[in-house]
Amino acid sequence: MLTIVGIGPGKMEGMTIETYHALEACDCIVGYTVYVELVRSLFPDKEYYTTPMTREVERCRWAIEQARAGHEVAMVCSGDSGVYGMAGLICELLGCADEEQEEETVAAKGSGAAGEDVMIGSVEPETLPGVTAACSGAAVRGAPLAHELAVISLSDRLTPWERIEERLRAAALGDFVICLYNPASKGRPDYLQRACDVLLQSGYMEPDRVCGVVRNIGRDGQEKQIMTLGSLRGYQADMFTTVYIGNRMTQQIGDHMVTPRGYRK
Amino acid sequence: MLTIVGIGPGKMEGMTIETYHALEACDCIVGYTVYVELVRSLFPDKEYYTTPMTREVERCRWAIEQARAGHEVAMVCSGDSGVYGMAGLICELLGCADEEQEEETVAAKGSGAAGEDVMIGSVEPETLPGVTAACSGAAVRGAPLAHELAVISLSDRLTPWERIEERLRAAALGDFVICLYNPASKGRPDYLQRACDVLLQSGYMEPDRVCGVVRNIGRDGQEKQIMTLGSLRGYQADMFTTVYIGNRMTQQIGDHMVTPRGYRK
Repeated sequence: MLTIVGIGPGKMEGMTIETYHALEACDCIVGYTVYVELVRSLFPDKEYYTTPMTREVERCRWAIEQARAGHEVAMVCSGDSGVYGMAGLICELLGCADEEQEEETVAAKGSGAAGEDVMIGSVEPETLPGVTAACSGAAVRGAPLAHELAVISLSDRLTPWERIEERLRAAALGDFVICLYNPASKGRPDYLQRACDVLLQSGYMEPDRVCGVVRNIGRDGQEKQIMTLGSLRGYQADMFTTVYIGNRMTQQIGDHMVTPRGYRK
Repeated sequence: MLTIVGIGPGKMEGMTIETYHALEACDCIVGYTVYVELVRSLFPDKEYYTTPMTREVERCRWAIEQARAGHEVAMVCSGDSGVYGMAGLICELLGCADEEQEEETVAAKGSGAAGEDVMIGSVEPETLPGVTAACSGAAVRGAPLAHELAVISLSDRLTPWERIEERLRAAALGDFVICLYNPASKGRPDYLQRACDVLLQSGYMEPDRVCGVVRNIGRDGQEKQIMTLGSLRGYQADMFTTVYIGNRMTQQIGDHMVTPRGYRK
């Protein structure tokens, strides 16, 4: 059995009850090194398998193999299991693998194994969703996302930067509230600045657009700030920062960033 | 104390642990009639206050008043507390109300109440996020959202239809995976068809684009279907349907809708 779970921001309280139960029930917890550390103290007696970033395929293959061998495996993703998570890659690998598997099954049948079905460890994964950073950070930030929203990652490891720019411009044109994941890292310290420049030059946003950031959502060292798009350009984000860029309606109310939906008060 | 909680799709297992604890700890549960019914059986001994749709402001004002009066109030939202939820409206009302409150406080001070601070029931709401339908439905559907995504509601009760059309076109231009909330209702049975027409006429999408729907996510009567954009046009959605429109990369793998991120396998 293979269960792909989203653990939310990381602390136990932010997990769904079904995710907590799945982690409790499994033999083996697999995931990205950083995220697995968030659950290890809760379940110290499980078997763990972690790989660093860029080794996602290896991690998913290992999880599938373990499930095929009869283990109860939980694949841990931060936030949601689908949004920039591993659910898609597992489906892709199983999609291919299941075809191979069918061939193997047919071959085994063909070799005359008493005419009965020979199913060698077929895996039907279960996916449990979790609270994605857009939502957990928004709860800290006020209610920036109350309206139409677009989620964009600034990481160009798997998506060309030109396409990211196109998406930023399209989201500005559509007046979406924009939530940026992976706004910067050591290797690309200026990507948030570049994204702000794309938005400012799009002609659809002014420098005084209300924006906000949250770091370490729901974890030790949680920080938040509210600022204009002009100031966001100079903000030094990191891998643990989630960024909110308001739409035309977004306001600062006290310390909160709020996008009114238009209820008549 | 006023806590605004997102309960996820509705069943207990889909709530976060902190939301469950907040509901357990409160005296009074407030919400939209349909969503409150999802939690009533779990907490039968609470006081309940519900209003139907279109009476959100009344509902939020009542919750704020009860919190001011010293009650422990939980405002229940389906999915997330922010995405099309009540967190924003509560902030707006408290933003206004707190200004009035300050005036009252100053007035009370001015009237010479022994020079001490007279704080009349100030409310600092806490917002707890939940799993929004985009994510809970995606977990049922496979992994359609693995990539950049845009969430758009087709309800024109608070947003003019022209703006919804603009957002659909912008999301198609940006090659976002699109998740549609409120795709149809009794009063607007043809809105999903109209949205599909906007996308098909945008020039950015073909009729064979991979799409999917999920009804009654995580509840009795859960249903899912995978289809092309051309067929989605004729699909009869309702208020409990969440719709996924793939981007250029989205594939059907078995019964699943998957948007690959581009990992090299």
